[in-house]
Formats: sequence, structure tokens, C-alpha cells
Amino acid sequence: MPMLIRKLNSTQADFAEQLKTLLAYEAEDDTRIENAVTEILVDVKKRGDAAVLEYTQRFDRVPAHSMAQLELPASELKAAFDGLSTEQRTALEAAAARVRSYHEKQKQDSWQYTEADGTVLGQKITPLDRVGIYVPGGKAAYPSSVLMNAMPAKVAGVQEIIMVVPTPDGVKNPLVLAAAHIAGVTRVFTIGGAQAVGALAYGTATVPPVDKIVGPGNAYVAAAKRRVFGLVGIDMIAGPSEILIICDAHTNPDWIAMDLFSQAEHDEMAQAILLCPDVAFIEAVEASIAKQLPTMPRAETIRTSLADRGALIQVRDLDEACEIANNIAAEHLEISTQNATELAAKIRHAGAMFLGPYSSESLGDYCAGPNHVLPTMRTARFSSPLGVYDFQKRSSIIHVSPAGAQTLGKVAATLAYGEGLQAHAQSAEWRLKN
Amino acid sequence: MPMLIRKLNSTQADFAEQLKTLLAYEAEDDTRIENAVTEILVDVKKRGDAAVLEYTQRFDRVPAHSMAQLELPASELKAAFDGLSTEQRTALEAAAARVRSYHEKQKQDSWQYTEADGTVLGQKITPLDRVGIYVPGGKAAYPSSVLMNAMPAKVAGVQEIIMVVPTPDGVKNPLVLAAAHIAGVTRVFTIGGAQAVGALAYGTATVPPVDKIVGPGNAYVAAAKRRVFGLVGIDMIAGPSEILIICDAHTNPDWIAMDLFSQAEHDEMAQAILLCPDVAFIEAVEASIAKQLPTMPRAETIRTSLADRGALIQVRDLDEACEIANNIAAEHLEISTQNATELAAKIRHAGAMFLGPYSSESLGDYCAGPNHVLPTMRTARFSSPLGVYDFQKRSSIIHVSPAGAQTLGKVAATLAYGEGLQAHAQSAEWRLKN
Repeated sequence: MPMLIRKLNSTQADFAEQLKTLLAYEAEDDTRIENAVTEILVDVKKRGDAAVLEYTQRFDRVPAHSMAQLELPASELKAAFDGLSTEQRTALEAAAARVRSYHEKQKQDSWQYTEADGTVLGQKITPLDRVGIYVPGGKAAYPSSVLMNAMPAKVAGVQEIIMVVPTPDGVKNPLVLAAAHIAGVTRVFTIGGAQAVGALAYGTATVPPVDKIVGPGNAYVAAAKRRVFGLVGIDMIAGPSEILIICDAHTNPDWIAMDLFSQAEHDEMAQAILLCPDVAFIEAVEASIAKQLPTMPRAETIRTSLADRGALIQVRDLDEACEIANNIAAEHLEISTQNATELAAKIRHAGAMFLGPYSSESLGDYCAGPNHVLPTMRTARFSSPLGVYDFQKRSSIIHVSPAGAQTLGKVAATLAYGEGLQAHAQSAEWRLKN
Repeated sequence: MPMLIRKLNSTQADFAEQLKTLLAYEAEDDTRIENAVTEILVDVKKRGDAAVLEYTQRFDRVPAHSMAQLELPASELKAAFDGLSTEQRTALEAAAARVRSYHEKQKQDSWQYTEADGTVLGQKITPLDRVGIYVPGGKAAYPSSVLMNAMPAKVAGVQEIIMVVPTPDGVKNPLVLAAAHIAGVTRVFTIGGAQAVGALAYGTATVPPVDKIVGPGNAYVAAAKRRVFGLVGIDMIAGPSEILIICDAHTNPDWIAMDLFSQAEHDEMAQAILLCPDVAFIEAVEASIAKQLPTMPRAETIRTSLADRGALIQVRDLDEACEIANNIAAEHLEISTQNATELAAKIRHAGAMFLGPYSSESLGDYCAGPNHVLPTMRTARFSSPLGVYDFQKRSSIIHVSPAGAQTLGKVAATLAYGEGLQAHAQSAEWRLKN
């Protein structure tokens, strides 16, 4: 029988090297994709609607004759919502309410202060005017992602949220449309791929140009987002999903095995790792994996993900587990221990932390409140979950009083002359009163 | 005599088109630069110190035999500081103190809250571990930029700040070294270009790998930063500097002309624009430009910048000026009017706002307090000044209580089944107590 999941031990001499190999992931730098995306973007920039329509006909096999046919009216979103089962509608509304409530705490306010000489300094916070939300179509169409991308923008005060979602062969996902209704999306176009990113970035006669594009997508969408970065803002470029679990052996091993599955079922490249000081518990989790795997509808994806990229790692103790976790800087970190809060204080790098045995990562994916769009591939070392702050920006406020200009002017002039910037110096000196 | 600066009028039928042409700027997409940068990065990744040393010998003509020779000891930074004139030292210290004080107000704190069922949600804020600061060498070596890039990192709590600054022909700038001393930079290497960006991103035997690289640079540096984005964080890709002035004709026209110069003297591609409802004042500014220009050491740069990219624009009124300013989303916006605070309330998009006749942009460049690293090329629509927030990141905290897992688990399971993610559903259901 082939290996279910590799087992490592942090006391092994070559553990650091093994861990590095385990974590190694380079997104393929596919020249063919880059070239195709460049061509599509240039074409959309030049021909607008006509180009978007043609690519949509070709790639999504949608026989529309005009861009107008590719826009979904608000009534269709509402109808999708009304058509849900009571259970689904209630669940979606509960999730939306909790996500909204958490994100409202992230909202930042403008501030300013006045100095003794009357000079006022501050920071003005404003929402972006108009943003684009990319929602994948087909098998990875997730209503939860609609909520997680649109609600922070809504809470930030963004006036127009333009959603794009491809509908291959014209098949729409009612849950996705219902989520757009709940989240308060302004307009929805059934377009996708690089052509949708181009339409949002450059604008067409039908699709208004946005200031920022967020949301996950395939390799073409990622390449297109990277390409239009600078003209518009983008969120992160997402890699495969990751879960890292620290467990003290007091959680039911079936729970831990299933938590590992819940990441592995996303994608064969997803990564699920357990850190535990107890060898008997690691064996119990391994046995549970073997027992539960055959019952999973996505067993094959899980099997490949665990075999190729998963690991059960025996560590010396929970402190060492925290050190390793800081090195891995995982997207999702479950600390399934009795003293979870204490251990969490030692964690510097993680997208989201799930503390205690009851905080399964799936609760965070849907309805705990915090965002499920999180930094992957060790980028939690320098980046953050998607949030309201991604849809607000700051402007510095500098209101120098006549008195303030006297002291600041001399400092500025001295430094400006030192840099050889005489107009800077002179501009400050004009405000000096002799 | 050739045109000093173009004059436009917002009532002209083709004004929108003219403004668009005026603002148009596309950074050249130079394949030669891209290829050179790719080659250098690959080489630095593979050969580390040896590659960095060779490129530094070749491009900067620095005859060092080892990387150790390219590191400046702390004592050399201190000596540079001690060697400054009293006036320069005092000015630099005053600027540093004000920049520190303003940025301390940007620092964000962790927060959390407990729900009725005992579930705790929150956001943990942590500084980045180690950052790299790129400081240009040669003619554009600005000590003020050292302060503006390093101090927010310091305030954020970053433990290690690694500065790189090329020293072509071995020439060091004492003001830059003194600024590094004041700002509390951890280590300084006299390397630059794509090789310095590569060393910071990948790490070498001598240069430690960083989590984020900030700071301005030439086209090679910009291309290299864009290329390593994802492996490390980067700040914005900066375009030419811009100033937009709204004036009600009550400020001395000599001041306004000099404020326009202070941007134009940076670079022939810099952009300086005046919006004013008063035609007589516009003529007075034009006359002042003609009068003051010959006295400027950088007259040729200013002349080219104003002629190629500058404009004096007559607007209908100050409200229209604000609308145009929101469209331009300038890096620096001076509102040199009597009712500046009132007008500032109408501005949604600007990197920094300088209010009232005494707030010359140059005061903000050096010592007012707010950062001078600001979004250019209309990116103030979606991005912010460099700040403490660029050196902090967030981790979501989710600590679900046993009771919370009952309500959240049902919602999550319903939505997970709707998305076809059975392991997600099962993982939530494991926590349900029957």
C-alpha cells in the first residue's frame, strides 16, 4: 500500500532540509500563459466590449450577442436568493451577519491633532470609489467567497462593487447569485478569465473601470491581475491553501484527521501538516486518516494532497511547534491544545489562528466572522487577511500655521540645500517672515 | 521664445481630452531592462555573495574583494553623524523627531472581543521581522528618504532594518550615513541595483533575507522589486513626482511658482499643475515663473518639466477644482486657499494634502511629520502613503467555545455541503454534541 502521509521528526539531523523540501512550492512561470494573457489584455484595452464578448463566446461557450446579455439584473440575483431552501437562506444570512459584524471592527477613522503653534497634522481615511470582485466559475464557485470579498468593501463604504463570474456553458450557480444579493454587489457580469480582469482594469463601453480588483482565480486570472497591478490595485496572488495544526494530543484524533482533510480536499496542491509532541497521537491520527479517507467524496484529491504535500511531524514540545509554525507562516494555523491562548502569544506569523479544539478551520471559512481570504505561501510574514483596510486608503493632512512655517521652514531649507534641491529650500524660505 | 508652460481652460469643449493627454504617462516597458534584471536575479539567487560582488565591481566600479568590505560598520555611520555641521545635525534630528512623533500615531494595536457564548474573535497585530530599505546612490541620494523609509519600520517594531545604498566609484554621502545612524538602521551594505534587491530577497551568506523591500530606485530596481514581489513584500512602484495646486488667488504668486518648481526640479518627467479660477492670478504666476526660473540652479530640468508636463488651468470655481483634483488623484495636493479645510473635505483622492498658504510641499518633504513616500500616477485612488501599517501585519484570531461550535457548526455544514466540500462540513459536524 502506498504511503498515506509522510512522517517526520524534528530531532532528525536533516529535519530543517526535509521541512524546506516539504514547503517548497513554486508557481509555474508559464510563458504560454503569460503570452496569452498579454494578448488578451491588449485586445480588451483596444477593442473593449467586442473583444470581451468574443473571448467569452470562445472560452465559456456562451452564445451572447451583446455585452448587455452578459449582465445579470438585480432581479435575477434576488430571484436566486428567494429560490434557496430555508435552511440555505438562513445559513447564508447568518454567515453574512457575522462577517459584517467582525469587519465593522476593522473600519478605520480619520484622525488629526493640533500642535502648540497651531499646525494641524492628520490622516484622512476614504473608501475606494469602485472595486471589482473576481469570482471563479465552474466547480470552484463558492458563495462564501462572494461574501468574504464583497462585504469588507461594503463595510469600508465602497459605493460600487462590480462582480465578474464566468458561467461556462451558460451554467449559473444560484448560491453565488444569492450571495451577491446578500452582500449588496452593485452589478454582476458573467465574464471571466483575463478578459474580465482587462475589462475591469481598463473599462469598456459596458463595464466601468474599477480602482482595485480582488478575488481568487486560475493561472490566467492571476497573471492578468499581476499585469494590471499599478493601473489598479490588486489583492494578493493566492497560492494553494494550507493548514498547519499544533496539537497536544488532547483533541479527538478523528477531528484532527478531518481538519487535515478539509484543507486537502480543496486541491491536490493544498498542504496539510500536523505538529505534535506525542508519537502515539500521531499514530492515532494516521489510523484515523486511513479509516475516514474512503468515506470522503473527494477521497482522490485528499489522497494525492496528503501523499504529495502533507506531513505528520513529531516535535520535541509545543514550544518547538510554535517556532516551526513561525517559520512556516501558514495560511491557517489551528492550535488545538488546552493552553491555546498561551501558545498563540508566541506566534508571530500566521494568516488566521484557530484556537482550542472547537475552532475547526471550516468554521472560519464560512461563518465565524473573520475573512477567509488569507496570505498563503509564507506571505503571512508580511501580509494580512483581506479586510476593510484593503478598501480604504489614507491621505496625509498637513496644515502648517504661519508660526509653524517659521520653525519648519528653517529645518526644511537646511536639509533641502544639503540635498541640492534649491527650489525646495526657496519654497520653504518664501514663507519665512524676516 | 518657446512656451514656458501650457495654459488650459476647463470651459474648453475638449478640456477632458486635453487633461487626459496631459496626465498620460506610461512607464516604458523595456524588454532589455527586464531581461538584464532577470539574469542578475537568477545569478544572485544561485551564486549569492560572489555574484553581488561581481556586479558591484562592474556597475559601481567599487574594487572590493569580499562582501565584508561592502558592509559599513555602525561606527562609520556615527562618525558621519558626528561630522555634520551643527546646523545640519540639528535639522536632521528635528526632522527625525517630528517624523517619529507623527508615525507613532499610526501604530495599530491588536484587539479582540468575546461573544455571549464565550467565543473570542480578534485581530493580532505584529511587526515584520526584518525589512530591507533601498536608498538610491549618486545624485539622487536623499537623507530625508532614509528617514522616511526607516522610521515607520522602527516605530512598527521591526527588529532588523537592512539598508542598501550603492556608492558609485566608492563615493559615500555623509548625510545619508548620518540619517541611517539617526533612524536606527541595523546594517548597511553599499550595494545597489537589481543585485541588491536580489540579495535582500533571496539572502546570501552575508546579506540576510528580508520579508519586505521598500524604497525608491531606478528602472532596474523597480523591475527587480516587481519580480521578487510575492517572495517578499514590496511597497509601491513609484512614478515621477507630481504636485497639483488649487489656489484662490490670495497666495503670493511667487510662492506658487516656487512650489511648482519644487516638484519640477526633481525630474524632467515630474508634473506640476495649477488649478485657479482667476485668470489674472494665473498670468501673475506665469510672469513669476519667467522671472524666477533663471535664478534656479536646476533651471533646465524645471524648464523641461514645466514645458512638457506642466499646466496652468483656469477653472470655473474652486468646487470644480476639487472635482478635477479627485480625477487627477495627485501625489501632492496643495490647497492654497483661505477656506482650505472646507475644500479638503471634498477631496477623496490625494497622497498628501497641504492646506493653506503656509503649507508648502517642501515642508512635508522634510520635516512636517507625515511620510514623503506617496502614491503617484493616480494610484492615490487605491493606495496610501508609506506608513507604520506597511511594517505591521494582521492575523485573525478565532477561538470558538464549545457552545459557539454548536451554532456555527450547523451554519458552516449547510454552506459547506452547498459548495460540495464534505470534509469541511464533517469537520464542523465532529464538534456538534448530539
